Amino acid sequence: MRRRNIKNATEKLNKFDEIMIFNAKDYKGNMNSLFPTKQPIHLEIGMGKGKFIIGLAKKNPDINYIGFEKYDSVILQAVTKAEEEHLSNLKMMSADATNLLDYFEVGEIDKIYLNFSDPWPKSRHAKRRLTSPNFLKLYEVVTKNPTEIEFKTDNRKLFEYSLITFNECGYKFVELSLDLHKDAELENFSIVTTEYEDKFSSMGNPIYYVKVTK
Amino acid sequence: MRRRNIKNATEKLNKFDEIMIFNAKDYKGNMNSLFPTKQPIHLEIGMGKGKFIIGLAKKNPDINYIGFEKYDSVILQAVTKAEEEHLSNLKMMSADATNLLDYFEVGEIDKIYLNFSDPWPKSRHAKRRLTSPNFLKLYEVVTKNPTEIEFKTDNRKLFEYSLITFNECGYKFVELSLDLHKDAELENFSIVTTEYEDKFSSMGNPIYYVKVTK
Repeated sequence: MRRRNIKNATEKLNKFDEIMIFNAKDYKGNMNSLFPTKQPIHLEIGMGKGKFIIGLAKKNPDINYIGFEKYDSVILQAVTKAEEEHLSNLKMMSADATNLLDYFEVGEIDKIYLNFSDPWPKSRHAKRRLTSPNFLKLYEVVTKNPTEIEFKTDNRKLFEYSLITFNECGYKFVELSLDLHKDAELENFSIVTTEYEDKFSSMGNPIYYVKVTK
Repeated sequence: MRRRNIKNATEKLNKFDEIMIFNAKDYKGNMNSLFPTKQPIHLEIGMGKGKFIIGLAKKNPDINYIGFEKYDSVILQAVTKAEEEHLSNLKMMSADATNLLDYFEVGEIDKIYLNFSDPWPKSRHAKRRLTSPNFLKLYEVVTKNPTEIEFKTDNRKLFEYSLITFNECGYKFVELSLDLHKDAELENFSIVTTEYEDKFSSMGNPIYYVKVTK
């Protein structure tokens, strides 16, 4: 994803105190208290400009959504878009998956979404991929049994790597598609997409998708 | 694969008694005695016109190859081609994977190749797919520990299904490519191909590949 650098983005985020979670560590184990209704929490790590998580929050009012994003310029775009929707079941955070255990208690999350994560193509950077075994271990701590993850990407090498690591770490493949948009068309189901996904798929490239549990 | 029906194919096969194994059941547990050298046996199930297994047999004289094919018209084409190569480490059989245990003792095979197997697209035919759990169980009986399988296909749905069953049945993904020919080009390695694979790949379609062990 191309990032537009926005001047004083961090400062500008302060205005959005209804959607933003600023002091997440204080709510560890009690994240549901930030929402009007206590209900399952689904987390998107790397929400980008927010199209996907906003789409899900609109579709599923009985789930509380939290979006992680590490670039404030990007969150600013997501939060601006989210504000227009007045969704009480959606919060956003300036946060990095590495610090997941600082924000959530054991089993506090019900599901994790990873969409078009950074592929980190060099093997020496494999540990930074959000589907690497070390990250999977973190997800397993913060999610309820079973751990449920949905992962989409257009990056073939990242997807191959991820299937290998999911398999290696004992995850079960619940759903798997090597061309999600074609399947949606053939089987007539609708997909909540990301900005990047729309662009990439319209070029005729396959979107890889897997849903796993452990 | 399109099958050309050849008149009296079964009868014509009798001429090829150097390559063909006719009474395989008599050699159960002793298949290596059919070859001049006792060495690991690799089996291709559904060898089609034989290009792949002939290619492997030429490349690896230290391995004995057996090709299964259930259509005599197809075997006739394979065996005709094989005869020209005078390969002492290659045998062919008119046989079906269903009867695997009739031909081989526990652990008699070292590796199994499945190439462009019939996708049996209807769910009610899933059990007929050569990567279905019931076939995997047969492979596990006749192969040495670990069971090693290499599987290639252009059929997306069959590949998705196969990744799910391999994962479900406890196989480890040793190698995985969602575009084998592109990888071969990028990483500069050579692939032994089937007739079908050449045709399909030249149309720009991806070949899916996985190597698994258990």
